[in-house]
Amino acid sequence: MTSSFPASNTSMRSERNTYVGKGFVHVKNPYLDSMDEDVLYHLDLGTKTHNLPEMFGDVKFVCVGGSPNRMKAFALFMHKELRLEDSEEDIKDICAGTDRYCMYKIGPVLSISHGMGIPSISIMLHELIKLLYHARCCDVTIIRIGTSGGIGIAPGSVVITDRAVDSFFKPRFEQVILDNVVTRSTELDKELAEELFNCSKEIPDFPTLIGHTMCTYDFYEGQGRLDGALCSFSREKGLDYLKRAYNAGIRNIEMESTVFAAMCRLCGLKDFKRVSTRLYCYFPSCCGLCDTSQQT
Amino acid sequence: MTSSFPASNTSMRSERNTYVGKGFVHVKNPYLDSMDEDVLYHLDLGTKTHNLPEMFGDVKFVCVGGSPNRMKAFALFMHKELRLEDSEEDIKDICAGTDRYCMYKIGPVLSISHGMGIPSISIMLHELIKLLYHARCCDVTIIRIGTSGGIGIAPGSVVITDRAVDSFFKPRFEQVILDNVVTRSTELDKELAEELFNCSKEIPDFPTLIGHTMCTYDFYEGQGRLDGALCSFSREKGLDYLKRAYNAGIRNIEMESTVFAAMCRLCGLKDFKRVSTRLYCYFPSCCGLCDTSQQT
Repeated sequence: MTSSFPASNTSMRSERNTYVGKGFVHVKNPYLDSMDEDVLYHLDLGTKTHNLPEMFGDVKFVCVGGSPNRMKAFALFMHKELRLEDSEEDIKDICAGTDRYCMYKIGPVLSISHGMGIPSISIMLHELIKLLYHARCCDVTIIRIGTSGGIGIAPGSVVITDRAVDSFFKPRFEQVILDNVVTRSTELDKELAEELFNCSKEIPDFPTLIGHTMCTYDFYEGQGRLDGALCSFSREKGLDYLKRAYNAGIRNIEMESTVFAAMCRLCGLKDFKRVSTRLYCYFPSCCGLCDTSQQT
Repeated sequence: MTSSFPASNTSMRSERNTYVGKGFVHVKNPYLDSMDEDVLYHLDLGTKTHNLPEMFGDVKFVCVGGSPNRMKAFALFMHKELRLEDSEEDIKDICAGTDRYCMYKIGPVLSISHGMGIPSISIMLHELIKLLYHARCCDVTIIRIGTSGGIGIAPGSVVITDRAVDSFFKPRFEQVILDNVVTRSTELDKELAEELFNCSKEIPDFPTLIGHTMCTYDFYEGQGRLDGALCSFSREKGLDYLKRAYNAGIRNIEMESTVFAAMCRLCGLKDFKRVSTRLYCYFPSCCGLCDTSQQT
């Protein structure tokens, strides 16, 4: 990956670079500071239309998940947990002007939906990272929460991801930039994984473990399901794939973790992590690796 | 791509195969007919909970697009155009039980949202194709309608796609099945493209053309934008890429067309096509290939 900086904005870049290393969220785009206005189109926000430092400057935690309804429910849950003074009715969707994503702010916590799949979360992350950068946020922890398919573990378990891997069990995200493929790392912060794991010990009834999470581009053919409109592999071949995944340390499958890890790592979101909750076994005919009696 | 059929459902497969060749929507999954129940999880529909032939048996046209609000607006527009007897208030979201997608039925027309990106539309298409199959629909035309970024054409133009291509300008969709990569064709029906183009002649004020559509996995780095959180290429390199795309016959860029073309082609959706409307030039600093005075 090569960078080419336009000569015109060198000084501004230099100023902004002081944020790097102090826990500030940063961007890796030499053009951004020279732009007159930055419209975060899919969030219905912008640097000219909104006072982003005032609106978001105190954000310390960002929790993201696929479903808009669940992220609203999470926001209401956080409101209760944090015992904030404002009323529950004050929790409004900040992105109500668009139906692409929804966003709620509860004190220092942002709760945002991202839809399904790598491209959908990628658009949201580009605009979220720019939002946090424009708002001059620092020491931000970002956590993805979502359902996923479990491999060889009890349904209902919580998997705390230490490493996101692709369909070939590799800890990498292949980003196509124009017509070049650039490989990015998907390692996650081990310290936060441990911290979250320790928290889980205080909560009974949720089996929790740390493991690798596999991220696929497809829900049916990509995850060994036998019930899509297309299925060209045998039950045995699908099961063999899942067993190989298990042996590679993978404990669950979802569709966003590699790009999430890669982008947050590049942009200084201090402790970036992924938590996968409400794990379930989803195979029409169970692979036999998990205990189906606990299926949720 | 290899198929492995379980011995147990050979007769059922044979029966169902009679649909193929008579314009019936079909699946390519030997396991499906032997399943006791098919839950279309992301549509909140199922073969045991809903009478799919009664609900959807008369469907002849399916129009899909990213945004739920726009697909509702399209449903209301179709209701007006078709002059149906039922009231506008009767047009309800059939998938209201889930927030993943929305779906409206207006006489023989289905209007469905699919979110953003290949993985998101792919989940919807698997379940939509199974829905049309279970409902025994035949001679179904499917059209994708959506905004896209124009290359070298007037903003506001309509591009009727004759061929979907990937980031490398190739008419292919690379589907990862377990840990194998299978390449599928993305050619679209030329006859319907001509038919739609002829229709466009009756509508003034919408410049319309037939061209190739490029499908990317990423909105910012993948489409040459200079305003993402990450940007590692120069303005000149981005412009050169767009010029090469133009020279390869590409007239617009979006994020779903290759998997749409590949899946519909495989499953007998009689005339599958993609129409891209409300084209606009989106570059912070215009590439100069289009007429920005008409930007919408």
